[in-house]
Amino acid sequence: MRNIGKKSLRLHKKLKGKVAITSKIKIKNHHDLSLVYTPGVAEVSKHLAKNKDEVDNYTMKKNCVAVISDGSAVLGLGNIGPEGALPVMEGKCLLFKDFADIDAFPIVLSTQDPDEIIKIVSAISTGFGGINLEDISAPNCFYIEETLKKKLDIPVVHDDQWGAATVVLSGLINSLKVVDKKIDQIKIVVLGSGAAGSAVIKIIKEYGAKNILICDRHGIIYQNRKENSPYKEELTKITNPNDVKGDLSLAMRNADVLIGLSGANLITESMVSSMNKKAIVFALANPIPEIMPDLAKKAGAYIVASGRSDFPNQINNALIFPGVFRGALDNKIKKITLDMFIKAAENLASLVKNPVPEKIIPSIFYKGVVDVVSQAIK
Amino acid sequence: MRNIGKKSLRLHKKLKGKVAITSKIKIKNHHDLSLVYTPGVAEVSKHLAKNKDEVDNYTMKKNCVAVISDGSAVLGLGNIGPEGALPVMEGKCLLFKDFADIDAFPIVLSTQDPDEIIKIVSAISTGFGGINLEDISAPNCFYIEETLKKKLDIPVVHDDQWGAATVVLSGLINSLKVVDKKIDQIKIVVLGSGAAGSAVIKIIKEYGAKNILICDRHGIIYQNRKENSPYKEELTKITNPNDVKGDLSLAMRNADVLIGLSGANLITESMVSSMNKKAIVFALANPIPEIMPDLAKKAGAYIVASGRSDFPNQINNALIFPGVFRGALDNKIKKITLDMFIKAAENLASLVKNPVPEKIIPSIFYKGVVDVVSQAIK
Repeated sequence: MRNIGKKSLRLHKKLKGKVAITSKIKIKNHHDLSLVYTPGVAEVSKHLAKNKDEVDNYTMKKNCVAVISDGSAVLGLGNIGPEGALPVMEGKCLLFKDFADIDAFPIVLSTQDPDEIIKIVSAISTGFGGINLEDISAPNCFYIEETLKKKLDIPVVHDDQWGAATVVLSGLINSLKVVDKKIDQIKIVVLGSGAAGSAVIKIIKEYGAKNILICDRHGIIYQNRKENSPYKEELTKITNPNDVKGDLSLAMRNADVLIGLSGANLITESMVSSMNKKAIVFALANPIPEIMPDLAKKAGAYIVASGRSDFPNQINNALIFPGVFRGALDNKIKKITLDMFIKAAENLASLVKNPVPEKIIPSIFYKGVVDVVSQAIK
Repeated sequence: MRNIGKKSLRLHKKLKGKVAITSKIKIKNHHDLSLVYTPGVAEVSKHLAKNKDEVDNYTMKKNCVAVISDGSAVLGLGNIGPEGALPVMEGKCLLFKDFADIDAFPIVLSTQDPDEIIKIVSAISTGFGGINLEDISAPNCFYIEETLKKKLDIPVVHDDQWGAATVVLSGLINSLKVVDKKIDQIKIVVLGSGAAGSAVIKIIKEYGAKNILICDRHGIIYQNRKENSPYKEELTKITNPNDVKGDLSLAMRNADVLIGLSGANLITESMVSSMNKKAIVFALANPIPEIMPDLAKKAGAYIVASGRSDFPNQINNALIFPGVFRGALDNKIKKITLDMFIKAAENLASLVKNPVPEKIIPSIFYKGVVDVVSQAIK
């Protein structure tokens, strides 16, 4: 890990930017210039001023996504601000390009005021075909995403919510096939009630999960718990049907599935040992998981997934966001619905023909990932 | 012209964007991914969160310029909004790339409120090494540029002001050599008191011009004229030393230089005929000049320049802005001063070794243009 970090620092210093701008046409002479710039471009400007809905047909908008962060919840590093966020957003733009040929551009904001963020994103949205919000902390991310979805006529996705939720559901679909359990008959513990945790709950609930416990640093979230913020109180309406109170250890006892979306080393081996037979453990905190995959296995987990590429079953948003935006842009989708995300999860899961404990999700380098995901967004 | 416009429309429809994003590194396997994205990138994020002034060394910021417009004064087309502005801003980004290898990205705004624009540009500025404001109408452009210059520690240039002023001064320097006149002994008429006009006045005044008349639609601007806005009143402090009142025809009588930065066909042949001997006419309105160059010649002008590539002496901002930002980025210049713009004008003029009436400014395709301009910004 230290080594990868050092190598990454050196690589970034050498590259000075992981993406760049490229010309789609070379200007060789005055004639070329008169077509791409003045005076010719005036005709395009006049046309678009009159026919605003044709901007897609004459500009880069059609293939262009803004990757926007306020730096408030970057990776697992917390509120490190726009400078710290920038290399992550650039990395995301690189993935958009390499995996789905989308022109994504990183924009980091020096404000964390939700209403200002909404104003800024709205004001700059004309040139973009989609908005990928990234690494914005809960609960602001919910309000920002919801408001922008209503205001804008292009897709807006906070990837920490929906990318994460979709890829988790995809892994869960195949894991349940492997262990031969039904989603409406199992106990699922979600550790982490931030952006990812709350979206995971919404998508698995919609997919049929009945018994979900969600835990934060105070333990299991239940109705009228004194530590509940309004949005955590809201989560109790779709979780914890038996009003269980207690800590994470209690929650995990006899659980079938643990989905960790929280922080490094929060899960112990004895917690994993206390789960039901054929336990499924997704320890997805980045870069250090809630429990290292080999330890979880040793403690008795039947299927283990993490966010890491150095263990089997890497659950990575990068399996989702390139295809989601590829589909939205190609199919001119203005709002991406929960049903579309569920369909994307199913399509992605279907790429693994015979899921086994060490292979419940395709590699992000598997051809066809972007295609099947994009086909769900229509 | 109609033909160029139609061709341009077709080309834009085919290209769907004149610039695109390109990867600077291919992600071939999990190891690559772990360096450009998680987990490796976390080390870069942590480093930059602690050392904010090192963002230049690890991200695309160092070579990245935002080209930002509110669509309020696009080319000579007026207030046509962000959709109409987008193809022009994209064109500008293409020129930045092709001429100076700068990664420029177009951002069009759906607000024209100056304070909102200032907030937005400030909030998104972290990822950029420079801000090129474009096609923002006067007088808002002055307030926006001035405020952003004070707020940000990266160069901010409203190109309609300083690109225009610099290239005009450059052409004027060589024209005055050709006609053997001194700038402090001539009468200069500037037609147009918008962004370009007011910046031209400031730069030629600083360069030594003493007798400048500026005209708007109401004629010559003089002190306490009832039509004066506060900023026009301000211009009377550095123009019209003899407090002349009258229309454009009167202003042009016995003028040595006319600099048109206004609109199509506002100058008549008889106005040009009434100028001093060896008259210099810059008719720079785009796409249709104040007087067509051949007509101005016929009416007696000795040197004629326009914004058009189909006549000699194309006075084009594209001679300036790529080099200005190239120099600012390379030399880590935080504020670009009037002296730097003057030096850039001189450097550009010096590229024409023996100026003659039909050649007072280099072609934008002349090698060395970007270099000499960039060398002035230090």
